[in-house]
Amino acid sequence: MSYCVLRSKSAGYSYLFVPGLHKTISMSSLKMIGGVVASRRLSGKALRSQSAELSVLLAQNKFTNLRTMASKAVTMENINPNIVKLEYAVRGPLVTRAGEIEKELLKGASKPFKRVIKANIGDAHAMGQVPITFIRQVLSCVTYPENIDKSDFPEDVKQRARDILNACGGKSVGSYTMSHGIEMIRRHVAEYIERRDGHKSDWNNVVLVGGASNGIKNCLQLFINDLDGKPSGVMIPIPQYPLYSASLAEYGLEQIGYYLDEDKQWGLDSAELERSLTEGSKHCNVRAIVIINPGNPTGQVLTRENIEAIVKFASEHNLFIFADEVYQDNVYAEGSKFFSFKKVMTEMGEPYSKMELASFMSVSKGYMGECGLRGGWMELVNFDPDVKANLFKAISAMLCPSSLGQAAVDCVAKPPAPGEASYDLWLKEKTSVLQSLDKRAKMIAETFNQMEGFKCNIVQGAMYAFPQITMPPKAIEAAKQAGKAPDVFYAFQLLENTGICIVPGTGFGQRPGTYHFRTTILPQPALLQEMLDIFKGFHEKFTKEYS
Amino acid sequence: MSYCVLRSKSAGYSYLFVPGLHKTISMSSLKMIGGVVASRRLSGKALRSQSAELSVLLAQNKFTNLRTMASKAVTMENINPNIVKLEYAVRGPLVTRAGEIEKELLKGASKPFKRVIKANIGDAHAMGQVPITFIRQVLSCVTYPENIDKSDFPEDVKQRARDILNACGGKSVGSYTMSHGIEMIRRHVAEYIERRDGHKSDWNNVVLVGGASNGIKNCLQLFINDLDGKPSGVMIPIPQYPLYSASLAEYGLEQIGYYLDEDKQWGLDSAELERSLTEGSKHCNVRAIVIINPGNPTGQVLTRENIEAIVKFASEHNLFIFADEVYQDNVYAEGSKFFSFKKVMTEMGEPYSKMELASFMSVSKGYMGECGLRGGWMELVNFDPDVKANLFKAISAMLCPSSLGQAAVDCVAKPPAPGEASYDLWLKEKTSVLQSLDKRAKMIAETFNQMEGFKCNIVQGAMYAFPQITMPPKAIEAAKQAGKAPDVFYAFQLLENTGICIVPGTGFGQRPGTYHFRTTILPQPALLQEMLDIFKGFHEKFTKEYS
Repeated sequence: MSYCVLRSKSAGYSYLFVPGLHKTISMSSLKMIGGVVASRRLSGKALRSQSAELSVLLAQNKFTNLRTMASKAVTMENINPNIVKLEYAVRGPLVTRAGEIEKELLKGASKPFKRVIKANIGDAHAMGQVPITFIRQVLSCVTYPENIDKSDFPEDVKQRARDILNACGGKSVGSYTMSHGIEMIRRHVAEYIERRDGHKSDWNNVVLVGGASNGIKNCLQLFINDLDGKPSGVMIPIPQYPLYSASLAEYGLEQIGYYLDEDKQWGLDSAELERSLTEGSKHCNVRAIVIINPGNPTGQVLTRENIEAIVKFASEHNLFIFADEVYQDNVYAEGSKFFSFKKVMTEMGEPYSKMELASFMSVSKGYMGECGLRGGWMELVNFDPDVKANLFKAISAMLCPSSLGQAAVDCVAKPPAPGEASYDLWLKEKTSVLQSLDKRAKMIAETFNQMEGFKCNIVQGAMYAFPQITMPPKAIEAAKQAGKAPDVFYAFQLLENTGICIVPGTGFGQRPGTYHFRTTILPQPALLQEMLDIFKGFHEKFTKEYS
Repeated sequence: MSYCVLRSKSAGYSYLFVPGLHKTISMSSLKMIGGVVASRRLSGKALRSQSAELSVLLAQNKFTNLRTMASKAVTMENINPNIVKLEYAVRGPLVTRAGEIEKELLKGASKPFKRVIKANIGDAHAMGQVPITFIRQVLSCVTYPENIDKSDFPEDVKQRARDILNACGGKSVGSYTMSHGIEMIRRHVAEYIERRDGHKSDWNNVVLVGGASNGIKNCLQLFINDLDGKPSGVMIPIPQYPLYSASLAEYGLEQIGYYLDEDKQWGLDSAELERSLTEGSKHCNVRAIVIINPGNPTGQVLTRENIEAIVKFASEHNLFIFADEVYQDNVYAEGSKFFSFKKVMTEMGEPYSKMELASFMSVSKGYMGECGLRGGWMELVNFDPDVKANLFKAISAMLCPSSLGQAAVDCVAKPPAPGEASYDLWLKEKTSVLQSLDKRAKMIAETFNQMEGFKCNIVQGAMYAFPQITMPPKAIEAAKQAGKAPDVFYAFQLLENTGICIVPGTGFGQRPGTYHFRTTILPQPALLQEMLDIFKGFHEKFTKEYS
């Protein structure tokens, strides 16, 4: 059961040779019929003379054998093509290489550095951030309820654990919860949103999810449709967080990029939105717009005016709004303030207050950084009730998000209140994390801006800097020789020479001819300083080498 | 911004009236153009005369106004049609109604019963099963590492917690893990599989997942493709677990049902497999086969001979095998034994030992019943390396499964060993759960078989009975009147009259003209006895009423 891809020496195109079928098939037909179909015809008795036939064809010297493949049921020829297209740079080849280097170092390999610094992913605890005690004490009690009586945890921790357990089937976090989450926790989230925005939030619109990415994918999925023979399109910022490009590729949805304005602190410009929509509408039905605020990878915090302009634009074109607001607690710059899309929309009045919106939040970011627990929520605003019912139905087949992720959500949505036993410690820990992130945000932008060939916007919020680098022409040439994009080439050089792992701008998108990278601001201050010093040294050497 | 669906009184077909567009559009065109496209043309300035125009048309008395809709960005007209098709009966309308009844009871409603018994879902802890201490002590330590020093937990618990934390970034379960899971735990799973099967398992082929459903969907997704203009098809058993029908609908994959043989203890028959494949091949490329063993909802445990026949069939037709083996620990009947597909395939030698297979396992079932933690794994056997790389890439965009779900997987894959401090208690707890399930499995089948009009196969394994019921013709008529399938009608009657929530056979599929339902065997013995007594009484009354 095998087949070969042969390249015709004269014609310059490829054939699939299927032994037993007594014929060759062109590559375009191959794509049509699929390896599986062909090889199924082969199975059983039809298969005897395969090697003899193949040798005859090769002996006639008309073909080169490109590759012989076992005819697997799933091959690169018949796999879901959208999965092949999908890219997710935050965990791409560079990160794989970083993992290999770590293993090499462990085995005693000699390198010009002693450790890998993973500045590629917003993974706070991995970079030394300490968990919030309140969250962890509650988790420790709900997983092992004897701790409620036996431990010396504060009373509010114990009460919270009791409340969560009472909301679980059989009073165990081992039970399935409702698919959209535990009702009590959904109510707490709605109260949190009301406090944040000063406007009503209906807990029935709150869905707990196993991380914001899950919720985003659930909502994106609603748009898969070929109306009028055209696919649906979704507008996303460029640069963007690659979950969006990956999910759009996976779902066969069209990615309609709109550029953020680097010169205006990565803000959004209405004219650019219009340009992007007009361009996109040529080949798809543009139906939704994604906004990431505070921005990832770009670190901007949108002004209220900017949000209003986006809402008007979306209303004018009847676009559904995805408000990715997972960094809502991460705002550092003086004068910057987080406004939720829901708040702004609501305060703009009708028709804007009636627009459809999904807003996403996560326990992985903010001051918590509990990425591994997989907890988050989405608020679904102004959905058609039938559409919402269908979304809930789709979610239900996946049973439920992690009960412990939900427990963490509860601690975030309803943190200790003033006067409660855990309040002081909770506030101290939260403040300390956010102040330190603030300091690091400033430190990183300042350092980059002192480096020749670097230009870095202020990190107003989120957890990343996204500086632009000037690439010497010789480096661009060397990258071309290496078959890599210039920023990817730079990032690999940085990794191999210093152990610093960043993500090149290519993974997020950038204006053609510009080069960027994303680094987190998460290494603890001493390590961050070390990283920036090493970075500086590398960059000088790199620039010299390629000038 | 609204539009109306009008029905022409003379022609008997519907129009979409779009104010501002100055024309009506037939329903088929509406489907083509989508509400959004139409309503987008409406937005802004074009909208002034809408109500005037509408009144004119209605005044001409040619149309009935079927409904006026706000032109949402996502409507039932332009939503992903696959999401509308998707059904998941285990959490369907019956379960929603059960939840409402629970709330009504809480509010003091007078009902002929005092509580709802949820026998609809395999949710062990919710039905009173006690968590395994070892798992929970480990979780309590990894979430709050101070417990390692401060608690009086056994030494092996503390060591396990240390091992898991050492395998986490920053020694915190709040860090992201690798997308396919923590390496140490993947190695432990491979060792578990080796002990189970007596054959090599490569930890690189083990992927940790947030519940088996996630893994199953990840693999099903590989098959989305239109080769030769035909969609891919996947063979699934009828009756089946509705995650499969739901996911196939969601992905636009064709569901090719093969009937299990109720008279042969729900075994598989090669002739039926061939019939199903031949039938399915007419309109799609059949590329994979799903087997659930032990069976859900049917409770059978396949014999080794049966598995061999399936493997041969799959090999002959080059089908990828999905082996849903999440109930591998749940085998009760004398003479029944669990054989993994991988073990059987391996021992059959080539070409069978080279076939592609994905096997799924979960911490939600077995003796653990930790549904809420969302932990599981899949073993990917004989994958094309490029296909595997693409699957891993797709998984990476979702970051990682819950670290705490993974910690639970570790405790299941590597339970306490003889001689270790937790071993005796762990064995006692495990044995007690499995023995009790064994007793309940027998009790439920015996009771059903004593009831008139019931026929129930032995529950050899898993957590469910799937009895057949004879429906009196008058009941079938009454169901028709109520617009319900007869088994759905029966299940609703049962729920409203007794508070017992089961899932009708329609949700799983059954041979036309037969009626079944699925009930779990999970209520604790006393409650199960009570449930069966109530059930018996209801069934007698129901039969009398409709005879």
